[in-house]
Amino acid sequence: MAADLVAGVGSYTLQQIADYLGAELRGDPGTEIRGLATLEGATGSDLSFLANPAYRKHLSDTQAGAVIVAPQVAGDCPVNVLVLDNPYLGFARVTRLFDDRPWPDAGVHATAVIADSARVDPSASVGPNCVVGADAVVGARTVLGAGTVIGDRSSVGEDCYFHPRVTIAHAVRIGSRVIIHSGAVIGSDGFGFAPDGGKWEKIAQIGSVVVGDDVEIGANTTVDRGALDDTVIEDGVILDNQIQIAHNVRIGAYTAVAGNTAIAGTARIGRNCTIGGQSGIAGHLEIADNVHVGGMSMVIGDIREPGAYASGTGSLPMAQWKKCVVRFRQLEDIARRLKALEKKAGE
Amino acid sequence: MAADLVAGVGSYTLQQIADYLGAELRGDPGTEIRGLATLEGATGSDLSFLANPAYRKHLSDTQAGAVIVAPQVAGDCPVNVLVLDNPYLGFARVTRLFDDRPWPDAGVHATAVIADSARVDPSASVGPNCVVGADAVVGARTVLGAGTVIGDRSSVGEDCYFHPRVTIAHAVRIGSRVIIHSGAVIGSDGFGFAPDGGKWEKIAQIGSVVVGDDVEIGANTTVDRGALDDTVIEDGVILDNQIQIAHNVRIGAYTAVAGNTAIAGTARIGRNCTIGGQSGIAGHLEIADNVHVGGMSMVIGDIREPGAYASGTGSLPMAQWKKCVVRFRQLEDIARRLKALEKKAGE
Amino acid sequence: MAADLVAGVGSYTLQQIADYLGAELRGDPGTEIRGLATLEGATGSDLSFLANPAYRKHLSDTQAGAVIVAPQVAGDCPVNVLVLDNPYLGFARVTRLFDDRPWPDAGVHATAVIADSARVDPSASVGPNCVVGADAVVGARTVLGAGTVIGDRSSVGEDCYFHPRVTIAHAVRIGSRVIIHSGAVIGSDGFGFAPDGGKWEKIAQIGSVVVGDDVEIGANTTVDRGALDDTVIEDGVILDNQIQIAHNVRIGAYTAVAGNTAIAGTARIGRNCTIGGQSGIAGHLEIADNVHVGGMSMVIGDIREPGAYASGTGSLPMAQWKKCVVRFRQLEDIARRLKALEKKAGE
Repeated sequence: MAADLVAGVGSYTLQQIADYLGAELRGDPGTEIRGLATLEGATGSDLSFLANPAYRKHLSDTQAGAVIVAPQVAGDCPVNVLVLDNPYLGFARVTRLFDDRPWPDAGVHATAVIADSARVDPSASVGPNCVVGADAVVGARTVLGAGTVIGDRSSVGEDCYFHPRVTIAHAVRIGSRVIIHSGAVIGSDGFGFAPDGGKWEKIAQIGSVVVGDDVEIGANTTVDRGALDDTVIEDGVILDNQIQIAHNVRIGAYTAVAGNTAIAGTARIGRNCTIGGQSGIAGHLEIADNVHVGGMSMVIGDIREPGAYASGTGSLPMAQWKKCVVRFRQLEDIARRLKALEKKAGE
Repeated sequence: MAADLVAGVGSYTLQQIADYLGAELRGDPGTEIRGLATLEGATGSDLSFLANPAYRKHLSDTQAGAVIVAPQVAGDCPVNVLVLDNPYLGFARVTRLFDDRPWPDAGVHATAVIADSARVDPSASVGPNCVVGADAVVGARTVLGAGTVIGDRSSVGEDCYFHPRVTIAHAVRIGSRVIIHSGAVIGSDGFGFAPDGGKWEKIAQIGSVVVGDDVEIGANTTVDRGALDDTVIEDGVILDNQIQIAHNVRIGAYTAVAGNTAIAGTARIGRNCTIGGQSGIAGHLEIADNVHVGGMSMVIGDIREPGAYASGTGSLPMAQWKKCVVRFRQLEDIARRLKALEKKAGE
Repeated sequence: MAADLVAGVGSYTLQQIADYLGAELRGDPGTEIRGLATLEGATGSDLSFLANPAYRKHLSDTQAGAVIVAPQVAGDCPVNVLVLDNPYLGFARVTRLFDDRPWPDAGVHATAVIADSARVDPSASVGPNCVVGADAVVGARTVLGAGTVIGDRSSVGEDCYFHPRVTIAHAVRIGSRVIIHSGAVIGSDGFGFAPDGGKWEKIAQIGSVVVGDDVEIGANTTVDRGALDDTVIEDGVILDNQIQIAHNVRIGAYTAVAGNTAIAGTARIGRNCTIGGQSGIAGHLEIADNVHVGGMSMVIGDIREPGAYASGTGSLPMAQWKKCVVRFRQLEDIARRLKALEKKAGE
């Protein structure tokens, strides 16, 4: 692969992209590709892709300059093709070439406040109004967006990209190639209090957070520090926006969690799981590896077997919903009456 | 209407307010009004209103200086009245006169960091520690609260009011008269990843976000940028706090979404809908215009007909709830046994 | 109690800790304690505790330097003990001694922007890039983390600790000893709009927020200001992360609310309640004192009796879930058919 292709330059020949992807090219290698688009929306300078069989109907009419396709479909495509066993993965890789997000220069902005004892790699980029605390470490080529705060004694690895206004509290350890979006807070206090005669006594949260390599954390997501031990986000975990990870949770490698999900204290989520959005995972439970939980799931017990799980009842027209809720609350009575009838019928 | 009434001065005559609202005044036009209050809480210098029939019982005892009422109620009010066909709308309009939020002077604060290529209208107000990126545009009379970040190439229209600590990522387009509350993030990456042998390959999100005119976006709400095309928030949409809008969602004009709702990728919500708080809307579905979804709804399929919808079962005393949940899980069995009994009974 | 023990020094004798806690010490008073740990993880320089009977099995094997235990268990402990009637409360108190969070020096950082008319106590600590507005007040020994914004006319009491990037809007009143975590927004506009012929007319939110003493507010939690009157968070309330408190809500003293919960407008929650995470509380309802609501609860009516409540149906394997949802939607029909059978059977 031509891994040295420069991203974001705006224009590539089809041959350059084929080399970058390691794809077989059928068609004109000199075709100029200036953007990415869906099969339906693409014009002659766009590269498109076919991954989902549901969109195959759009293939014959596409105006794309080229399409990334699987081998068995390549013959049906009316335009240039790049053939890959996994077209969706190829598409994912090629998006990088067209990503035009700002990539700031190395160096510390004049308005950033860096503690004397902090170690910021000279190749890192520290944006306006950032604050890097005492004894904190920022690794090579890492980007800190404007207004980001790195707490005392925290470390951030290499090649990370933090968008503006991220907060890393004190003594947090973050790996390399970690992306964190705006407003995320890593290392806030866990919600730990001891009852004291009708009042609450705060339990200082003296653990911390450990985030592995290749993790992505969404906008306004929060990860609390542990009470005694650490909260752990393993390598390759991807967290969407507005997620709450409570103290001492452990999320296994390569697990994906969708938006607005809340995971309560000391829950352990396995590896390679997917957790649907708006779900609630109760505390002190375990979810096995390779578990897939639907959106708005309410997980209140261990899930020990891999597989798919869901909960909730789905939305209904208001009048029907009201009747179903009334009957739901009568379920114990319904079951008893059914049993009585069965007895009478001699079953 | 006397649209030139100056807001926030703290005191108006009843005649001034009647003129501002275009309301019929019955009573003393010189009554001095210094505040707004409920019928029960109002004193002689307060203006109140009666919109909800449930509060009509408080009308006869009110101590308000005046009350905004509908024509058919005007005769029953013991104090001065302002008569309007829509008293609630009149109340909404008059709140502006008593809003004492800070309205900062035009100009760029000395601590703000503005890229050389950015265009900030001289009548705009850019607060302390704001950052405005390369080629970004900030329109006339727009206010950027302290610590707000406008990404490279993004544009913000006229007469917008962004509260402190808003993040607008790069290449986002925002209309005029848009209010955004603290902590909101517009243009964070959509949650797009391709599976790659047990790991995740990030799909760069090269679309953006388009926000129309007259939109309001709540505190800590997040709106993700599109994967290829844009996420779209149409004119007049109102979004409450802590909402997550995923990539490529489209929300139709004048739709209202209440707090903590999550809308998954590529969902299309119609115009003039209301979505209750804490709801979850699955991805790749369509909701028609004029659909009203209750709080905590779980929408997992298209809603094609206007009307009211709801889901969930509501809270119950713990002992009853436990029994209902057990029976819910037996529903398939209950239905089968019922059918068997019916067969036996010859139905 | 030796309340003058200095926190965070890293090492104490067991006698010092016993004095601090007012605990009976059985064993070697000179034992050096350098940290806290669970019974299983503790080494000879760690102090541990036994509060939950489920962990009693770990007591006999512990390697801890000492354990905080209840009187009836003290005899079974193989190592030094500190005897207290409430070991968990003792543990909570001792965590403070080992909390190593940064405690910045008094004074205003050079990059902070303080309005001339603001009054900041000389013993307060105002971090980098903070903004304190006109006529705002910051009390003695209060810490404002980096990038925190205090709006015009707002007041913050004594001994508060605000983590980085907190927003307090204008005219908000916050008590003493209040902890607020990063990204929280207090005083954003309530979600109030009047319908106006298919559009929305904003109702300026001219109330504010009052937060009592000894309150803790989690990361990215939002508390909206009231429409006319104030939103009220009473003394000793603890709010976890990502919670949304709508306008004119009142939360009674010492109530605890777990993460991602949304409480709609004008709801009144009693004292000493606990609200589970990811719950939704509808607007304009009342919850009595001492009510305990489970996680993901959907509270859509008043709860007038103290006690435990829950809702939802819990997650199920996908195939079973699909069948139960189908049957749930047939519940009205099931109930009717059951009644018909009973009639036929002469019940």
